[in-house]
Amino acid sequence: MAEMNRVFTMETVPLKFGWGALDEIGHDLAALGLRRVLLLTDPGVAAAGHAERVAERARTCGVEVVVWDGVRSEPTDASWREAIAFAREGAWDGFIGLGGGSAIDTAKAVNLYTTHPADLMAYINRPLGDGRPVPGPLKPLVAIPTTAGTGSETTSVAVLDLLERKVKTGVSHRHLRPRLAVVDPQTTLTLPPAVTASCGLDVLCHALESYTSLPYDRRPAPADPAQRPAYVGANPVSDLWAAEAIRLGARWLARAYHEPGDREARTRLMLAATYAGMGFGNAGVHLPHAMSYPIAGLVRGFRPRGWPGEGPLVPHGISVALGTPASFRHLGPHAPERTREALRHLGGDAGAVAPEEAGAALAEWMTALLRELELPNGLAEVGYTAADIPALVEGTLAQQRLLVNAPVAVDAALLEAVFRDSLRLW
Amino acid sequence: MAEMNRVFTMETVPLKFGWGALDEIGHDLAALGLRRVLLLTDPGVAAAGHAERVAERARTCGVEVVVWDGVRSEPTDASWREAIAFAREGAWDGFIGLGGGSAIDTAKAVNLYTTHPADLMAYINRPLGDGRPVPGPLKPLVAIPTTAGTGSETTSVAVLDLLERKVKTGVSHRHLRPRLAVVDPQTTLTLPPAVTASCGLDVLCHALESYTSLPYDRRPAPADPAQRPAYVGANPVSDLWAAEAIRLGARWLARAYHEPGDREARTRLMLAATYAGMGFGNAGVHLPHAMSYPIAGLVRGFRPRGWPGEGPLVPHGISVALGTPASFRHLGPHAPERTREALRHLGGDAGAVAPEEAGAALAEWMTALLRELELPNGLAEVGYTAADIPALVEGTLAQQRLLVNAPVAVDAALLEAVFRDSLRLW
Repeated sequence: MAEMNRVFTMETVPLKFGWGALDEIGHDLAALGLRRVLLLTDPGVAAAGHAERVAERARTCGVEVVVWDGVRSEPTDASWREAIAFAREGAWDGFIGLGGGSAIDTAKAVNLYTTHPADLMAYINRPLGDGRPVPGPLKPLVAIPTTAGTGSETTSVAVLDLLERKVKTGVSHRHLRPRLAVVDPQTTLTLPPAVTASCGLDVLCHALESYTSLPYDRRPAPADPAQRPAYVGANPVSDLWAAEAIRLGARWLARAYHEPGDREARTRLMLAATYAGMGFGNAGVHLPHAMSYPIAGLVRGFRPRGWPGEGPLVPHGISVALGTPASFRHLGPHAPERTREALRHLGGDAGAVAPEEAGAALAEWMTALLRELELPNGLAEVGYTAADIPALVEGTLAQQRLLVNAPVAVDAALLEAVFRDSLRLW
Repeated sequence: MAEMNRVFTMETVPLKFGWGALDEIGHDLAALGLRRVLLLTDPGVAAAGHAERVAERARTCGVEVVVWDGVRSEPTDASWREAIAFAREGAWDGFIGLGGGSAIDTAKAVNLYTTHPADLMAYINRPLGDGRPVPGPLKPLVAIPTTAGTGSETTSVAVLDLLERKVKTGVSHRHLRPRLAVVDPQTTLTLPPAVTASCGLDVLCHALESYTSLPYDRRPAPADPAQRPAYVGANPVSDLWAAEAIRLGARWLARAYHEPGDREARTRLMLAATYAGMGFGNAGVHLPHAMSYPIAGLVRGFRPRGWPGEGPLVPHGISVALGTPASFRHLGPHAPERTREALRHLGGDAGAVAPEEAGAALAEWMTALLRELELPNGLAEVGYTAADIPALVEGTLAQQRLLVNAPVAVDAALLEAVFRDSLRLW
């Protein structure tokens, strides 16, 4: 039998957190030695005035910030290329990603491809890309999230859609991590409820998945420490982050949805997002996130009610959340104690549940939350039928980097069952 | 009334943790791009074979490690100068601090004064030193703790004794933080019980003090964000670290003391040390640590039983622990809910205690632990009498950088009472 791994790693991003923290951004940029910075954001965030506020604060500290507001929600190879092309026209000593995960991930890509130019596929994860390691450190990137969602401000991952392949993938390397995360819950105050719900569910799933991921000490030791992946599995540190994110998310997400102006709910949910990012950024996510890639990628006509913009879209948080109840129902029996602990952190009555039934109980708990947040009732409501399951299964199986983090080996039969149970949730 | 602070910061060190993690050190050094590294350690750690093990592992990865084993327990200005002088004779592209806080702090100092040469007092904290800010980044420093104690591997502080002034002080700047902490609990397996107890009590005090420190949002906002100190006070992130460190320390310290070969106890206590370092390195410590400086600095003839080496010494953990029961007895009523929460994390029966009595209950809990760990029965047993109290109070009042973190303003009258109550504990 192979020797088991006994080592875990934790790497995170220096954090500045607080209501109004963004007011200090000029000082933060200057302290990093930056003079001329490209800020990448999307049109909605720019329209909310956040980008101009950053640029103004920077100016008073002698830092020039140029705003590019062409980031596209759910970025693609095409939109990355567009951002990189713009960035190449100027000279920058650092970058800012301001927005949701789309903006921060695009800023990571711009930082990577302008610092170490290469064909776009060079650094994209295998097997879709060449998976070339990032050759060296990048320029300072300051991440400023304006959603309580992806946690991209603390992770080493950037995600994109490959348009021709109709599939999501990304780049993953420690050099991608931002140099600083400035997390100001005030920026989330104007988010529409539908966006709050989707992003908040992403947070809860990050935390639930990393908490239940295959533990670091139940994996084989890497032959060479350099091959130890960034996602090492559940470990004492990621558990701390994830458990607190589960507690905060479970307690405050519905409040932030129903009372968008509630400052305490916005602050707690933003903390949950940051903690969940630190947790999954080291432990990893598994089945619901792997399923979300084809669920989002194969979208036909769906667009959620109350979502800004237009065009077919299954927002990331929704695509993750819809597979979550069935995932935990099927995986729970393979990680019974952990799943019951997760249920306890959610606030469920874990004491009344036998360990082998914890997955089903957690599935019920999540289903009730999805109803409360007025999510679509399963994959059927976003336009999928039983006939789509083979394609969804195939798209999920392509995400081996995530599936290896599940508490049990995931094969096509398991995925078929999970997708079938996800067509209709209540 | 001044505007209150609403922002906290968290910065930490990339961590590699696990039983046998040290076996991968060659890879870690190479991944940092290091080729020729100076390792600083003390004679005891070198004799245990850890330094040679590091050098060997490094060699197999093409990294040359030169060992200097002249670090002195409880370093002084003289011992810092000696280490710096040795380092200046060679050319190094990085450093390793291997040992307890003394070795890691000395390595921080060597990194600072060889990278940005200056008079020793230049960077020392005011008012004893000039408090000059560190001008720029330092070379990579890898910290490898061999005690479950100071947490220096994650902090931005280096502490020393100024021999002529008979006082402890230090350097504190974010650039001092190690580039990587490699934490291998196996290195603590051979620690004598007395050292385990002293170091473990330091851990518990780090956690209790940061958990009860004046919260970040009950302090005035800094006029300039650049003036926000590294110690920002208790905040949601430091609370997570500290609470878990309290739970682990309370549960495993006595076990590691009585059963030095218990691997689980050694591992849990090492986790507690790391967590406590992350917590107090961002929140700060207060009264017991401030008192420890003169308690250690004014030592006459005392040396603890079972402690390696010779000469008068109040080891750091003991000097901190002896003031802890009385500190919490007196401070508790000023932070009643927090103190009761801390008692709950210790495993005390917090439900049975009124908030205003939590400080006294916590003091009793700590006193029982000190007896169990066979510590001296108060300051009287390390050689102090009531006649020494004025000098001890004066030495404590000099530690304003720490005292401002206490939950209430600390004056001479309060300190006199605390020192009087610390002369005899049971």
